[in-house]
Amino acid sequence: MTLSLYSDESYMREALKQARYALAEDEIPIGAVVVLERQIIARAYNQTEKLNDVTAHAEMLALTAAANFLGNKYLTDCTLYVTVEPCVMCAGASAWAQMRRVVYGAPEEKHGFRRHGNLLHRRTELVTGIMAAESAELMQEFFARKRK
Amino acid sequence: MTLSLYSDESYMREALKQARYALAEDEIPIGAVVVLERQIIARAYNQTEKLNDVTAHAEMLALTAAANFLGNKYLTDCTLYVTVEPCVMCAGASAWAQMRRVVYGAPEEKHGFRRHGNLLHRRTELVTGIMAAESAELMQEFFARKRK
Repeated sequence: MTLSLYSDESYMREALKQARYALAEDEIPIGAVVVLERQIIARAYNQTEKLNDVTAHAEMLALTAAANFLGNKYLTDCTLYVTVEPCVMCAGASAWAQMRRVVYGAPEEKHGFRRHGNLLHRRTELVTGIMAAESAELMQEFFARKRK
Repeated sequence: MTLSLYSDESYMREALKQARYALAEDEIPIGAVVVLERQIIARAYNQTEKLNDVTAHAEMLALTAAANFLGNKYLTDCTLYVTVEPCVMCAGASAWAQMRRVVYGAPEEKHGFRRHGNLLHRRTELVTGIMAAESAELMQEFFARKRK
């Protein structure tokens, strides 16, 4: 099987790289990228510990970086890739940004937004389960370490 | 009637000052303060236009500033005062911060979090309607100007 350069899997692989940076820094390993016209315009990983800030989730940092890059706070033609189901805060941020698509990997039953209904923008397409196993594995590795 | 220095109204008045700074800068006029042990430890107003960033809501900036001030991302003994009902994003952020109390002024039927259920932390006390008329009036003034 060949992996298209422009597939959801391919961009999720880049988000997973970000998640691994988080893991290396002892942060909850979640990564995100924002893509516009096949180009990655922002990359980020969770930095809540380093920045001492609950708002510094990978998605928030990636949305802010993408808006800075574009000089436009609306990301209407962009896709957000994130390794784990976004929380309520990040889903809300993606709604304000009017994302075209949100693509995530592993579900997050406790803190994920989906149990609160559809909090995304009404025009946002949601795609789930892309490289979910790899994303979940990173999370499990982190929490197994913490328990030791 | 005397207004206690430490009443919810008194802190909301400070949040309203912040909202007026937003109005003066042609931002949607919403202001917030964070209070710990009767002291205001953070003040902020909506800056989504200036910062070109949908995440730059008054509450988000205030929570980040409060965490910076305390050197602690958990605001478990703090109260967030905000002039208008928080959106989903900001409610989610306040949940992560584990706010002790969230106090808002005017309801926001379209973008407020409450129509999605209780998105706050389970230990957060919610108080509503404090100086609601003043808060709503600022919003009406802003949108009336915009329509002109």
